[in-house]
Formats: sequence, structure tokens, C-alpha cells
Amino acid sequence: MASDVRLKEQLPRLTDRIVASYTPDDGINHLGHCPLPSYEAIVEILLDIKDVLYPGYRRKIGLHAGNIVYHVGSIIDSLHDKLTTQIARALRHEDRVRNNHNDCESETDYEAKGQAMAIELLERIPDLRMTLATDVQAAYDGDPACQTTDEVVFCYPGIEAITVYRIAHELVRLSVPFIPRMMTEWAHKQTGIDIHPGATIGKYFFIDHGTGVVIGETCEIGAHVKLYQGVTLGALSFKTDDDGSLIRGQKRHPTIEDNVVVYANATILGGKTVIGRDSVIGSSVWVTKSVSPRTTVLLEKPELKVRGAAGEPPQVEAGSYQI
Amino acid sequence: MASDVRLKEQLPRLTDRIVASYTPDDGINHLGHCPLPSYEAIVEILLDIKDVLYPGYRRKIGLHAGNIVYHVGSIIDSLHDKLTTQIARALRHEDRVRNNHNDCESETDYEAKGQAMAIELLERIPDLRMTLATDVQAAYDGDPACQTTDEVVFCYPGIEAITVYRIAHELVRLSVPFIPRMMTEWAHKQTGIDIHPGATIGKYFFIDHGTGVVIGETCEIGAHVKLYQGVTLGALSFKTDDDGSLIRGQKRHPTIEDNVVVYANATILGGKTVIGRDSVIGSSVWVTKSVSPRTTVLLEKPELKVRGAAGEPPQVEAGSYQI
Amino acid sequence: MASDVRLKEQLPRLTDRIVASYTPDDGINHLGHCPLPSYEAIVEILLDIKDVLYPGYRRKIGLHAGNIVYHVGSIIDSLHDKLTTQIARALRHEDRVRNNHNDCESETDYEAKGQAMAIELLERIPDLRMTLATDVQAAYDGDPACQTTDEVVFCYPGIEAITVYRIAHELVRLSVPFIPRMMTEWAHKQTGIDIHPGATIGKYFFIDHGTGVVIGETCEIGAHVKLYQGVTLGALSFKTDDDGSLIRGQKRHPTIEDNVVVYANATILGGKTVIGRDSVIGSSVWVTKSVSPRTTVLLEKPELKVRGAAGEPPQVEAGSYQI
Repeated sequence: MASDVRLKEQLPRLTDRIVASYTPDDGINHLGHCPLPSYEAIVEILLDIKDVLYPGYRRKIGLHAGNIVYHVGSIIDSLHDKLTTQIARALRHEDRVRNNHNDCESETDYEAKGQAMAIELLERIPDLRMTLATDVQAAYDGDPACQTTDEVVFCYPGIEAITVYRIAHELVRLSVPFIPRMMTEWAHKQTGIDIHPGATIGKYFFIDHGTGVVIGETCEIGAHVKLYQGVTLGALSFKTDDDGSLIRGQKRHPTIEDNVVVYANATILGGKTVIGRDSVIGSSVWVTKSVSPRTTVLLEKPELKVRGAAGEPPQVEAGSYQI
Repeated sequence: MASDVRLKEQLPRLTDRIVASYTPDDGINHLGHCPLPSYEAIVEILLDIKDVLYPGYRRKIGLHAGNIVYHVGSIIDSLHDKLTTQIARALRHEDRVRNNHNDCESETDYEAKGQAMAIELLERIPDLRMTLATDVQAAYDGDPACQTTDEVVFCYPGIEAITVYRIAHELVRLSVPFIPRMMTEWAHKQTGIDIHPGATIGKYFFIDHGTGVVIGETCEIGAHVKLYQGVTLGALSFKTDDDGSLIRGQKRHPTIEDNVVVYANATILGGKTVIGRDSVIGSSVWVTKSVSPRTTVLLEKPELKVRGAAGEPPQVEAGSYQI
Repeated sequence: MASDVRLKEQLPRLTDRIVASYTPDDGINHLGHCPLPSYEAIVEILLDIKDVLYPGYRRKIGLHAGNIVYHVGSIIDSLHDKLTTQIARALRHEDRVRNNHNDCESETDYEAKGQAMAIELLERIPDLRMTLATDVQAAYDGDPACQTTDEVVFCYPGIEAITVYRIAHELVRLSVPFIPRMMTEWAHKQTGIDIHPGATIGKYFFIDHGTGVVIGETCEIGAHVKLYQGVTLGALSFKTDDDGSLIRGQKRHPTIEDNVVVYANATILGGKTVIGRDSVIGSSVWVTKSVSPRTTVLLEKPELKVRGAAGEPPQVEAGSYQI
């Protein structure tokens, strides 16, 4: 029992059929173009940066005052080269798309531009560390199941997602195209938390559990904000007078002021929606209007249909149904 | 301070205890049976097929008209062999389960059957590309944060999940057992999007963000349908006259007609539920009855309990609470 | 076009700036400390244990009665060494945190303690197999789309999450610190299912689809319980007389008695909330009070706003809107 050689002889013809389907306007091939940024290289860059942000946790053990300069120096040198190459590719790709040409040649020295942006990103690492230290502290302060800040750095998916977001957001601020989304989509894959790199988020930010969280591109989030799993900060994409056409580039996502807590699976929608400072949005609440400061919004006693076995007494605990 | 050798001498006895727990009817060992399909091989097959579907994006850079035939021909040759082996394993496993025997020998030449199915799948790649190009276009058209179709192919989790689903669904149509579920569960792990390979889904399908989406086995989805994160298209598993027994193999999941949009965290349940064409199902809506065409279903002003700080005025923005 | 050498000459100064930000109290470095458990080693340990729990499914094919002792004996030997090392690291780290010192030396022989705990965990593998066999059976019994128990072991994310949880929970019972959370967070990353290793869960437990499920640290779950995707068994973290301070270490999460089913995206909150045996909690229900045994709790006819195209008749299917 073996495979049929005659069938296998179809493969060259089949290959030709497949290659014939690669047409310039099929929209899903990238043949004959300048290379896009490499996915693998971007992941390596993120792992390298994380190693510098949080030294001694994961990749390399036994780091101490006597050897840390060599370790960091070596990573920074390598990061400089990788970032320069990948940012140059992203810039050249954007040039091609914007100017609708297929040529890898250009008047612009994208390697030089990429290098300047790479170094600028690296220069921001000490500030990034200060901000991320506030996020780690917020996680420790906000989760009664947490024992040490080491645990937060080591295995909290919220910190993983926020770390990658903060790196990617710096690249957005430096006007690096394409790569920020690659970074946050990698974090989304790792954590189930989808933060658009264009969002702005203050210090002491904590996301607990996190699976299913979506934070849209034009969100503005203050300091000391805490979100739980399944929270959507999204767009009101349809309106009463909706004509079906997409509006790009305006504020479509909500503003969350300082010290707000949003519990699991709550949904807050709309670019004009502002959740005022010190407010609490309860679990599963759905909000599309602004809420003033120091307000608690909860689900009212839900309308439930409760049905017991035949002949049995009422079933839900006595007392008002509220949290 | 070292480990205790005497304790380590327990290990052979412990090994014997563990091995003694491997009984033919424990239900969780696969000893002495023909090999199942290899998880690693199935993942390699998916990566190979994706490389042929979307050439030049990820694995290999510098592809162009002059070298693409060699690149594709080499992948197709290798795919032929891997698919033949894995499909033969899946068919032999199904034979064993259906006929309740433990023998790897069989009258049937499963390699020959596997090869025919492998080649049939590969023959469908050009058609798959045409369908997937519509999905990529739908993502670009449907997301205001999206800059280029390259971005969609490169890093949209929805496209990742739909691509794997469409490959797996072709295998379902070819009656290949076991492997389709392995494929879509791998995509589920990558993206948080769980599409059963038995569902049928039309062209121009887009899932944005996607974490938590579940699409059941007997769903029928038309063309130009858009789903957001957390949408469940599921079964009504319990009824008023529920007797607790499972019903297998009948339509348990809803039908979604053309041009329907379902917003985040909406839940649509039941095999008789039909969402008519051009309808919109709002965020967090829960639907278990059919909806006629061109209908918008939204949450009514939610019953919320709003509580301000002592002595402060009412808190939610004036005006009707609606989207 | 090349990168600018003068710019690159900034890198040593930049390295010094980054290293200067690594201060003893920045909270996010682990320099000069005893090594933490290795993330990679913990993942290897999980894969090894899974190979022993479910022999013949994934890593090694062709296992049978004649060679299985050698295969298992070799894995157990290696597991003994890896577990001893990693548990010793976790114990030493806990000592350092609890006693607030930075010294890797200690009076305690953590290797010996780690070895004893490692062997105790391995001794529990036969019992773990018996429990996991009930979980696999529950998945097969509970999912009409499932064909064989092999499919469950091979590709059900619920089984992946429950397996890792049950391993981690044994380590919690052995008072091993740090490592249980590392394990369940790895499973969370793989499956989107976040089970705290401190929860207690009975036999025949099944989670279908699973993305977004959160099970809190102090949950108590009986036997024959079934959960669907997006279910939160969480804490009521805010109360009317909330003073903002966290309460650690008391029961904050619900109790779910035997034979309960909780459908997709339902939320059950609070340490005093008990869902009585044989009850059903419907999809998207939000419960913060106890429910007596044999009770079904469903969403009442939802308040929906339904809007048709101009001049068209009413749109939602006639008949009462209920499941």
C-alpha cells in the first residue's frame, strides 16, 4: 500500500494553477515588493526590550551589579540593529502604499530615518520603566490573590499586554507605521487582551484576568484605572441616521477619567462618552452616555425567570437582589 | 545540601504504579494503537498552506515572478506527502473507532485514500484564495482603524481564524475525520476565535477583535456578515421540557443571512433562529427568536442603578439613554 | 545608505542610563537575587506530566505494553530532577520575600524539601489520572459535536486547562508557592481559560469552548458541573459601604454545587453566593444571590428596541420571547 505515482504527477500542473492565481490585483500576495517587517524579528525585539525593562526575571538568571552592564549593552547593540532594519522596512512599505509605486528604491534614506527612530525608542526605556513600575504596583495593590510584585512581572497577562502596548505606543508617537499593530496583535494572541497602540493610557493601569478586553484606537484613559476581563471600550458604529459609510480618524472610543474601575464584561461605547473620575461601572453594565464623577452604575435587579422543580417553594435567596 | 538518594530510589516503584494505571478501558491512553495524526505535523501543514495562500508575507521574503514556481512547487510536494500520511492516520483511526477493533491492519488502502483526498484539497487552493481575498477585503472595508490590506493579512486574528476554518471546512467536505477539529482548535488557541469546521460561511466574512467568538457546528452564515468580539452563535441546549438527553447531529445553531452585523458580546441561540438579511444585532443583545430582514435589534434603555456621592446631583448625562 | 556610526556611538551612554534605572526599590528588577523558577522549565514540566497522564497521544507514537515502562521511567526520572530544582527555587524565593532578606543562603535545605514535594506530586499521578478520566468522559457526554474521547484528550481546550489546573492544585495542597500560578497562567495563555489553582473543583468537570472563563481563588465547585465560554465565577469587589481597602484571604468567590450547568457569558459573583445542586443558570444571566437546588434561572424576555425599515411590518418572530 503506497501512494499512487500517477497522482503525484499532477503536482507540477497544480503548482502552475496556484501560481497563476497570484495576480497583481488579487490583494493577498506580496510578490516582487520590498520586504515587509519580519514577524519573527518583531517578536524578538519585544522579548529583547522586555528583558531590558525587567532584568533578571526570565531569560537570563544570575544577573547582578557586576555583569549587568555587559548584558544590557549587548542587548541594546543588537536591538539597535534589528529596530533600524525593521523600521526602515515599515517606512519603505508605507511610502510604497501612500505613493502607489512598486519600487524599492526611493530618494529617502529610510535606514537613516529608521536608525534615528530606533535610538529614540531606546532612549525612552528608562521612562518606560518608571511608568511600568506604576502598573506593576497597581496590579499588586488591586488583586487580593497576589502575593508579590515578582508574581505580577512574572506571570500576569495584564502586565504582558500593557508592557507591549506601552512599547508600541511610543512607536506610534514616533510615527513608525505598521510595527505597532504587529506588536499589539502579538500581545493579543498571548493574552486575549486587544489594546490598540493608538490609545492613550495613564499610569497605574491594571487589567485583571483580561481575556476579551478590547480598547479602541481613540480611547483616552486616565491614571489609576482598573479593568476586568471582557471589558469593551469601543465605538458606537451605528446610529439612527446611519448611512452605512465608515468614518475614519475621528474620536470613536470613550474617555475614562482617573480612578475609575470597570468590572467584568461591561461595555462602554462612543467617542463622546466620558466616565467621570472616581466612578465605578458594574459588571455586565452597558453604557453609551457620559457618567459624572464619583458615580456608581450597576445593573438594576435583573429581570430573571426563575423556575423550580414541581411543587417546590420559591428559589432565589430572600432579600433585595442587589450587589 | 543535595537531594536524598534514598528518596530517588522510590522512582522505579512509582513508575510501575503509574504504568499499572494504564488500563485498556481508562479512556485516556493511546497505547498499542495505530498512531493518531501528529499535532506538530498538522500545524506544519497549516503554515505551509498559509504560505501558499498568501505568498510573500511571512516565511520567505524576496519572492517574485522568477522564483515563485520553485518555492510553491517545493511546498506543494512536501504538503502532498504530509497530508497523505496524516489523512491516512485519521481514516485508520476512524475505522478503528467505528468498528471497535484495535488492529492497525485493514482491508482498506488508507494511504491511497489519503493521497486522493490530499490532492483534492490542494486542487482547491486557487478557489480558496479567491474566497479569502473577499474576506481580506471585508476586513479592510469594515475597520476604520485599518490602513492597508497588507495589515489585514499580516496581523488580523480574524483572518487567521477564518483562513484555518476555510481550510478545515474543505477537509470536512472531503469527509476527512479528526483533522479539521485539530486545525480549528489550533486557530482557537492562536486567536480566541472558535469556529467549528462544520459551519458553513459565505464570502466577505469579517470578525473584528474576535476574542471569545464561538460559531457552532450547524451554523449557516451568508455573505457580507460581520461579527465582533464575544459573539456566540450557539445552541439552545435546554428547553422547558428538557429531559437531559443530548441530541446529536441535528441543526442546533442559528442561520445568519447576508449583510448582517452582530456587535460585541451579542448572543444568538437556537437551530430555528434566523436573522434576516440586512439586519443589525446590537452589542450585548440576547436573541433566541427569528428576526425579519432589515431589522435593528438593540438593548432598550438598560435598567441601571445609579448612585452618586452624598449630596451630589444626578449623574448620568441628560437625554434619552440610547445608541 | 547606511546607518550613522556617530548615532551608534550613543549606545554605551544609553546603556549606562538604562542600568542606572535599575535601583533596588524600583520593584521591577530581579538583580542580585536567588533565581526565580524558570518559566521554560515549568512549561517543560507540564508537558512531561501531560505525557505521563495521557500516554501515546502527542509527543511519542508507537508506545505499547513492551516499551511503556522505559518511556515513563525516563520521564519520571527527569521530572524528579526538574521539579526538585524548581520547587527549591520557589521555596527560597518565598523565604526571601517573607523574611525580607536578599541572601540566597539559608538554614533550610530547600533542595531536600523540594525533593520531598516533587516525589509527593509524582506519587499522586495515578489518582490524577483517575480524576482526569472523569473530566474527559464529562466532555464526551456533554458535547453533541464530539465523536470520540480521543478527540477530547487531543484537542479540547477545556481539558487542557483542567489538566493544568489539577496539577497546579496538587502543588497548592503541598504548599508549593509561586509555581502553581505560573502553571495556570500558562494554561490561560493557551486556552483563554483562567482557573486559579487555589479553587477546589470536583470530578466530571467540563468547560466547553472556554475562552474568557474566570474561576476565582476561593471558588468551591462540586461534581458533574458544566460551564460554557465567558462564564465568570468572581468576587463582589465593591459594596455599599465600600471603603476601598482590599480584603485578602477570605472566601470571595461562589460555591457551585453538584450537577449545575452555567451557560455562556453568565456571571456569578460573591463569596456567600451558593448555586444549589441540579440548577441551571442561563446564558448571560448575572447572579449575586444564592439559588436553591433544582432551580432554573433565565433572562426574562429582554427589553429590546426593534426597528424595521420604513413602512415595514413588525419584525421579531411572533410568540413569546423566551427560551
